[in-house]
Amino acid sequence: MSISVDKVENIFDIIEENQSIEEIGKTIFPKTKDKIPFVETIPWEEPYSEAGQDKRLKYLKNIRKTNMDYISGEKKFDEHEQLKGNIENFIGMAQIPVGIAGPLLINGTQANGDFFIPMATTEGALVASYNRGMKACREAGGISAVCLTEGVQRSPFFKFKNIVEVGFFAQWLVTKLDTFKEICSKSSRFAKLRELRTNAEGNSLIITLEYSTGDASGQNMVTISTNLICEYILKNSPVKPQDWLIESNYSGDKKATAISFSNVRGKKVTAEVVLSRNIIENVLKTTPEGMVGCWRVSTLGAIQSGAIGAQGHVANGLTALFIACGQDVACISESAVGITRMELTKNNELYVSLTLPSLIVGTVGGGTALPTQKECLNILDCYGVGKARKFAEICTSVALAGEISIAAAISAGHFVDAHKKLGR
Amino acid sequence: MSISVDKVENIFDIIEENQSIEEIGKTIFPKTKDKIPFVETIPWEEPYSEAGQDKRLKYLKNIRKTNMDYISGEKKFDEHEQLKGNIENFIGMAQIPVGIAGPLLINGTQANGDFFIPMATTEGALVASYNRGMKACREAGGISAVCLTEGVQRSPFFKFKNIVEVGFFAQWLVTKLDTFKEICSKSSRFAKLRELRTNAEGNSLIITLEYSTGDASGQNMVTISTNLICEYILKNSPVKPQDWLIESNYSGDKKATAISFSNVRGKKVTAEVVLSRNIIENVLKTTPEGMVGCWRVSTLGAIQSGAIGAQGHVANGLTALFIACGQDVACISESAVGITRMELTKNNELYVSLTLPSLIVGTVGGGTALPTQKECLNILDCYGVGKARKFAEICTSVALAGEISIAAAISAGHFVDAHKKLGR
Amino acid sequence: MSISVDKVENIFDIIEENQSIEEIGKTIFPKTKDKIPFVETIPWEEPYSEAGQDKRLKYLKNIRKTNMDYISGEKKFDEHEQLKGNIENFIGMAQIPVGIAGPLLINGTQANGDFFIPMATTEGALVASYNRGMKACREAGGISAVCLTEGVQRSPFFKFKNIVEVGFFAQWLVTKLDTFKEICSKSSRFAKLRELRTNAEGNSLIITLEYSTGDASGQNMVTISTNLICEYILKNSPVKPQDWLIESNYSGDKKATAISFSNVRGKKVTAEVVLSRNIIENVLKTTPEGMVGCWRVSTLGAIQSGAIGAQGHVANGLTALFIACGQDVACISESAVGITRMELTKNNELYVSLTLPSLIVGTVGGGTALPTQKECLNILDCYGVGKARKFAEICTSVALAGEISIAAAISAGHFVDAHKKLGR
Amino acid sequence: MSISVDKVENIFDIIEENQSIEEIGKTIFPKTKDKIPFVETIPWEEPYSEAGQDKRLKYLKNIRKTNMDYISGEKKFDEHEQLKGNIENFIGMAQIPVGIAGPLLINGTQANGDFFIPMATTEGALVASYNRGMKACREAGGISAVCLTEGVQRSPFFKFKNIVEVGFFAQWLVTKLDTFKEICSKSSRFAKLRELRTNAEGNSLIITLEYSTGDASGQNMVTISTNLICEYILKNSPVKPQDWLIESNYSGDKKATAISFSNVRGKKVTAEVVLSRNIIENVLKTTPEGMVGCWRVSTLGAIQSGAIGAQGHVANGLTALFIACGQDVACISESAVGITRMELTKNNELYVSLTLPSLIVGTVGGGTALPTQKECLNILDCYGVGKARKFAEICTSVALAGEISIAAAISAGHFVDAHKKLGR
Repeated sequence: MSISVDKVENIFDIIEENQSIEEIGKTIFPKTKDKIPFVETIPWEEPYSEAGQDKRLKYLKNIRKTNMDYISGEKKFDEHEQLKGNIENFIGMAQIPVGIAGPLLINGTQANGDFFIPMATTEGALVASYNRGMKACREAGGISAVCLTEGVQRSPFFKFKNIVEVGFFAQWLVTKLDTFKEICSKSSRFAKLRELRTNAEGNSLIITLEYSTGDASGQNMVTISTNLICEYILKNSPVKPQDWLIESNYSGDKKATAISFSNVRGKKVTAEVVLSRNIIENVLKTTPEGMVGCWRVSTLGAIQSGAIGAQGHVANGLTALFIACGQDVACISESAVGITRMELTKNNELYVSLTLPSLIVGTVGGGTALPTQKECLNILDCYGVGKARKFAEICTSVALAGEISIAAAISAGHFVDAHKKLGR
Repeated sequence: MSISVDKVENIFDIIEENQSIEEIGKTIFPKTKDKIPFVETIPWEEPYSEAGQDKRLKYLKNIRKTNMDYISGEKKFDEHEQLKGNIENFIGMAQIPVGIAGPLLINGTQANGDFFIPMATTEGALVASYNRGMKACREAGGISAVCLTEGVQRSPFFKFKNIVEVGFFAQWLVTKLDTFKEICSKSSRFAKLRELRTNAEGNSLIITLEYSTGDASGQNMVTISTNLICEYILKNSPVKPQDWLIESNYSGDKKATAISFSNVRGKKVTAEVVLSRNIIENVLKTTPEGMVGCWRVSTLGAIQSGAIGAQGHVANGLTALFIACGQDVACISESAVGITRMELTKNNELYVSLTLPSLIVGTVGGGTALPTQKECLNILDCYGVGKARKFAEICTSVALAGEISIAAAISAGHFVDAHKKLGR
Repeated sequence: MSISVDKVENIFDIIEENQSIEEIGKTIFPKTKDKIPFVETIPWEEPYSEAGQDKRLKYLKNIRKTNMDYISGEKKFDEHEQLKGNIENFIGMAQIPVGIAGPLLINGTQANGDFFIPMATTEGALVASYNRGMKACREAGGISAVCLTEGVQRSPFFKFKNIVEVGFFAQWLVTKLDTFKEICSKSSRFAKLRELRTNAEGNSLIITLEYSTGDASGQNMVTISTNLICEYILKNSPVKPQDWLIESNYSGDKKATAISFSNVRGKKVTAEVVLSRNIIENVLKTTPEGMVGCWRVSTLGAIQSGAIGAQGHVANGLTALFIACGQDVACISESAVGITRMELTKNNELYVSLTLPSLIVGTVGGGTALPTQKECLNILDCYGVGKARKFAEICTSVALAGEISIAAAISAGHFVDAHKKLGR
Repeated sequence: MSISVDKVENIFDIIEENQSIEEIGKTIFPKTKDKIPFVETIPWEEPYSEAGQDKRLKYLKNIRKTNMDYISGEKKFDEHEQLKGNIENFIGMAQIPVGIAGPLLINGTQANGDFFIPMATTEGALVASYNRGMKACREAGGISAVCLTEGVQRSPFFKFKNIVEVGFFAQWLVTKLDTFKEICSKSSRFAKLRELRTNAEGNSLIITLEYSTGDASGQNMVTISTNLICEYILKNSPVKPQDWLIESNYSGDKKATAISFSNVRGKKVTAEVVLSRNIIENVLKTTPEGMVGCWRVSTLGAIQSGAIGAQGHVANGLTALFIACGQDVACISESAVGITRMELTKNNELYVSLTLPSLIVGTVGGGTALPTQKECLNILDCYGVGKARKFAEICTSVALAGEISIAAAISAGHFVDAHKKLGR
């Protein structure tokens, strides 16, 4: 049984009837704002030195008109009360090095223009590798990215005496959808209950409540709303469950699962780019054919390894972004599951797409308001309300650039050199 | 075809013949060192305030005789040259709040005694929840943990004209094992080639080279060694491949895969604890039966969601430890896959185990030598050579404590309260 | 994006408002017809002899008032023209031995009463094992079984120039749903288009068309309808695909997939029974605790093996029924995926359920009208229109009886003996 | 821990040192015997009529010098005592129509020459579709097929008090390998214990015993041997398990699992063929590029559906062969899992391979000696001792022909027409 409460608003809904493809293209991907000029003089060449750091900070501050006093270490964290809701038994701050990559040119529905990408990692070569992928994509005119849909789930569990009671209960549930939506809307300004699905197994029933969560990653708000709905159920259901639990471990929280991959969890984003032979040869030092061959091997390797989805190293880029930008890093488990595709176009250019169906991100709540996190989000103009889909499109575009770079490195035989030179 | 080069030394190998179970118990789990007295006065009660932070730091410094000048923010990072191998295009440090949980009492083969656990996270309630699980486990006499085996893989790909050539090639490979081991030993002091497996699919062959990597997580060293071995192969093979790649995406690097879960990737660790009814009622506010019921639902929920393995929220604890301790956080993708089991003993106590077969950790290399990372590893006495298995046992024990705490919270209906009170 | 066209009628829909649980129980599970008296004299004791065969045939003919001239070998197949639609290049008939098990008492929504089950197999001990499980279930008052929902999918693929075109196309598709339903209804009396789902990945889109298929297993009718719909799309879509295929291999046809397991493919049926300690000890020669222990091990074993779902040997019973009853036996791939659960009730009885979410069965079309197949369906009163859900409930109940029997045999240590005695 | 007892003899072992590739090719694939001339006059054109049947039977009898009295219906089954070990409560014979496809030309290590393939099915178009694929492969010079390795597993379960006891037990097990091998060799002439693997999870241990089973599919013989080994363990182990079970559901018996797919279960066979553009255009009515495109979509579709492996409809052909040839049809669950690959060669021909790693087949025991089953095996010259690997190579080649045919049909848009014309 699947009952659509109301449809998650979808990017494609903004299309008006009778628009031409050209008009739609412009509607979906508004004219990319003036690109930040790619300043070759930005001193990437002093990758670790303090002088290099200062020059990069200055450059970024100038372009983005934002402070970076905490990242730079100028200011020391001392607003302890701000930590409430983020940590207990606080003893201090773990410091993770942040490198900057980009600019990454994105033609998204929300993310539009050139972006410098802050990546927090301790893995040498990672920033350099992503940077190279971004360069190739920018020369190709940028990555198109669309946040297709969204939904965060909680899946409470109810056990009854037998199947008959399950049926009776399920039938009753359906009649209460409006009530549940109302309960949800009272529990949070942002959470909206979108859909209720039931999954019967013998005398037990898993209910999946799927919410949109505004610009928060939303796991807490859906938990609180679901709890209130369950309280209502327990009080009002004409048939009393023998047992119930707020979560059946079916929602896919903090783990890679096939259902989150095939449906949605958080945001589902797809992104694409077409790279000319010229770019691939000059920037990536390989050929379209070499990259397609590498992709085929990599996809079959993923299948043979029993992976969920098939991609290269999405986890690398996402994790670096998540740490820098105050995301729930444990959600890398589900967020880094996706599918990369590379194929030759009829003109023998390289078409590349990446789809991430379970990207858990937010631009409010969680760790987003902490000092360095907020600064990193500001570099992306992604702090606060109205920015979550934009951030999701950036995340996916970054990961796509990384997929291109690693496939190029492996197909060209440069994979090892990079790690020898830049890793430890 | 599977050719065991030589067996990964296994913890069970230290058992001598004719030892009694009691003696073996002592051999495997050496007498736990004097426990750190559980000081009730350690001021957990000021969870965010600077005063609370200072008291906790003082307490920890006193117990562990180690500096925490960088975590505390007293010292500012300025050794930029140290960043080489960790980052490019450095712009500064992302700061993630660290909370301390514990003490966690572990009776491991390497990890032995009481440990305070530094956890870097922005998710409220996480540290408190793990802390509660640790308290229950400590009262129960501690968690037994064993690092069972280890192995890090690279899986190069070779394509030939047809199956016949694959067969010829595979046959030749086998005869060159000693050569490959020698190449490996020259490429790194730490990497040891343990096993070579082949996986034929039509005219192509994936070779899996499985290494032990000393105390490093080891992805770079196995890449470098594998590359040298491939160079040897390309130069010397009596049949020339049409195509080859250093990695076929079969090794499971940075992703959850069924084969890493069913074999090993990094370290395979198993841990267990028995909780009395008394502890469960007093510390965890629920019953053994309630927790077993929750586990059953949770395990079936995982199956129904199409997860790999079945566990609750291992990713939460591991990610917090990984960020604090300079691990490759992107490896959460594979490291957080595992299997939790809860069942009643004949005395109606609760038996709990957690097995993590693909835990990618290291105590040298990667981000371990960076300032706050080194400090956090020092809190655990896990910095440097000879500590990786110990750290792996701690990681798994922490995750086990978290599995207990979440199952208790869900079964007792406290899951929501904690997130309401401590989350955001 | 998910657009519910209209809801698959669900068994629970027959519940009327304000009915009590008791009334609902009677509505869902109409009073079980008079049970066939379990005649102990039916000569199971001559399991292979011709005399035994004759007695069993006579007994069955008498009870079911149906012919068994082809199964018995009295009549020889000679209506060759009937084979059209079932085979090409016909050379004769493969003969698979059929054993009879039961009676199996089912309290289903459609299957109601005692059933003798024809099982075609060459695996010794299989019929005997299932028979034992059926005996235990019958003594327990029978198996409750409900066909929860149904749906057969085709998943055509469309590729466009880029994501923008995909969005435009998807948006257009939604407006054409009524048209598609009409096309479907003209293509077949039985197929009804229920739901259309889209799954975008870069510049390509998989459309899932989910149908109900009356009493046919339905793969052919959904293919034909989908083809007509695709033809309409190709002719009328305002944006022309670069490429399209009638099936993207996403529908789960003839393979075990996570999405068929978590949604539905064919019929989704759940069944349950409660076995008293007495029955378990007397009929199954083990204990409820032993069986629950075996189930727990078996479920964890399935997880560790990387299975989809978790069950024991559903494939055995289903395959034997499918061969006997003219089903598409290749669909065992998906049909035998499910989830078995065993747990102690508060009275320490054994609760057992089995849920099969992707059971592909039909009682019209396919091989159902062939001579022995029709006879076997007639034994079950499942030949022809209006019987598919009934047959699905029987299939699941048979499989449930088998799950009970194997868990009992393994927990009691009889598993080997049975195979020694009855196998080869 | 993995202890190789001794290596499963491998086809590649027959290669002698210093042989050239050409010599090896001849060693592995002995010169294909004289092909059966492809007689265009064999009356495929009367696909259902009795006259057509008679002509085909006559043709086959003449070529294969074998009886087909039971398939043809001339003789009626009456040797009831022969049924012992195959069925209980026998009531008669289910009759499944058998069509003949081929000839299929195979250049295997054991299967060598032209084969006519008996397929038992009720699904119209199936035989015709496979036949077409075989025709294309034959014109291309035949399919190369190699049975790479083999192994049938039983996975008993042992539970102990704690991890220490597990370690002690595992250590002891290793020392008893020769004893176990001896026990095995006494239990069966055919079963050979090859390998013992252990899989610890907390206080429990799954042992995987991997056997070769001669020419039987072997599930019964490995059960019996494993039981004897377990009895020895229970009697002699210095540490007594609290609980044990003969099977932990880890062996993959009767289900699709990731570990059987990535290792081996039964036979692992790989097969390949190269089809020229000419053949694809003339026989398959499509293009190499169209088929590669279809394969890519199909592979991504499989990934997105959460399948194990990625193939088209292997289950169809295998099931038809299994029913005809007395195999354990329930094993389609694992046998039909595999990986199909299609790619363009440098000459723009189509390379196709299929690998089936868990093909459970036998040519002795099971249903192989029953009348029609034996006749069908005889058509393939695969009845009895020394034929199992040959039969496995045939099975995989048949499935490969089917993969080609369906991809051609889908890419050419003929998929629907075939089902309309030949299905029901």
